[in-house]
Amino acid sequence: MTIERAACLVAAALLAACQPAEPDRDPDRGEDRAAIHALLVDYGRTLDARDFDGFAALFARDGVYLAGGGGEPLSGAEAGEAMRRTFAENALGFAEPNYHLLFNETVAFTGPDSATATSQSLYMVPGEDGAPRAAMMAAYDDELVREGGRWKFARREVRGLMPAPSGSGASRD
Amino acid sequence: MTIERAACLVAAALLAACQPAEPDRDPDRGEDRAAIHALLVDYGRTLDARDFDGFAALFARDGVYLAGGGGEPLSGAEAGEAMRRTFAENALGFAEPNYHLLFNETVAFTGPDSATATSQSLYMVPGEDGAPRAAMMAAYDDELVREGGRWKFARREVRGLMPAPSGSGASRD
Amino acid sequence: MTIERAACLVAAALLAACQPAEPDRDPDRGEDRAAIHALLVDYGRTLDARDFDGFAALFARDGVYLAGGGGEPLSGAEAGEAMRRTFAENALGFAEPNYHLLFNETVAFTGPDSATATSQSLYMVPGEDGAPRAAMMAAYDDELVREGGRWKFARREVRGLMPAPSGSGASRD
Repeated sequence: MTIERAACLVAAALLAACQPAEPDRDPDRGEDRAAIHALLVDYGRTLDARDFDGFAALFARDGVYLAGGGGEPLSGAEAGEAMRRTFAENALGFAEPNYHLLFNETVAFTGPDSATATSQSLYMVPGEDGAPRAAMMAAYDDELVREGGRWKFARREVRGLMPAPSGSGASRD
Repeated sequence: MTIERAACLVAAALLAACQPAEPDRDPDRGEDRAAIHALLVDYGRTLDARDFDGFAALFARDGVYLAGGGGEPLSGAEAGEAMRRTFAENALGFAEPNYHLLFNETVAFTGPDSATATSQSLYMVPGEDGAPRAAMMAAYDDELVREGGRWKFARREVRGLMPAPSGSGASRD
Repeated sequence: MTIERAACLVAAALLAACQPAEPDRDPDRGEDRAAIHALLVDYGRTLDARDFDGFAALFARDGVYLAGGGGEPLSGAEAGEAMRRTFAENALGFAEPNYHLLFNETVAFTGPDSATATSQSLYMVPGEDGAPRAAMMAAYDDELVREGGRWKFARREVRGLMPAPSGSGASRD
């Protein structure tokens, strides 16, 4: 053992002996929280910019995307291509430009490099007068993972809230 | 005094002597901020899920809820029961499902276990076509307290912003 | 060199030798993030309260405000006066009260006292029935600076998103 190593152990022991226990204080995860928030915003931002490759890159290597109502799990690349088709077809005839408004975000860490999150969105499209109109509302349930230093979607499940998904029991009266 | 205790005091003294003053740097309250944000989101989430017991539990032991316009202060349990009746009666005839969209949140700490917060909400309900429609907008003024390790409402006052409360001087022209 | 200073250097050296490298861990900027979030909320809050002096004070000494579409850069004071006139004229005839709903905020630090931010807003006004209606949507690109201990706008550029700015190529079909 070198002198430096011995001194280091002594210092560490002194410090450890001095640390109060702080049993109810979590380590601060502010930068992780900010990075996860940015990931959730990027989900909408890439779609709004029709950046489907950027969208696909938000998913982890083995990440999966599930559109609510029993769709197959898609990889990030598959989800990007599915989104490309969805926007090209524009089956619901939304005017452009249109934007995701993201809110009600909560995050819970499950480990140093993993977390779960819930959030919601409004999809804002131009109304007849050009003013913003909320066309759809959705909820997201996420499992997140840090991969290569970046937080990514390990699993994102999207559920439509409004209009009520067909076949749901939700009242629309 | 044991040797360990003496060594500890020496180390602590050394450390204290080495700490730069940092007079304009507040301690980081990131985890407290995240817990308070989650509380504000839970207010809407419990109501949206018709979880009135969960709603009541968001209030501190002596916490009070004040609906704007001069209502009596309610305890958390009373506020939960009032909400249960309000949603059962549904006097304004809102379609379901419906959701609180929470935003413009600011938090200021007043002590290690207390804070104030301001925020706003939109109440989103299905419109005639099933798409989300903003039915009401409200503002919240909160006093928050940490109790049993959890942040809770010590006092939440809600004020309706739109439609303009009856009797208010707000112009609707 | 005093004994205390020598002891301090020894303790610091011991500690430095013991610190793991942590190359991918940024310092936590939670309080800065909270202050910047509050600045962005205050932009809307001051306008909604018609507090144009408070609005002007959100800009740094040399801060500039650019309304999208090629307007001249305005100082904070000039921007406050321009806003005062805009709200007095109310050329678009919006009913009162009205509020900025702020969302999709991301912040990136460029130094200890500087950052960039992007965010968006909806401008909520009373509709014919008094319920909240989204009248406009905008995007903000910010350069932020800490000045006198407070985060301020060094440069804020606002771009209208909806209704589509006249002369834009955005499709509204």
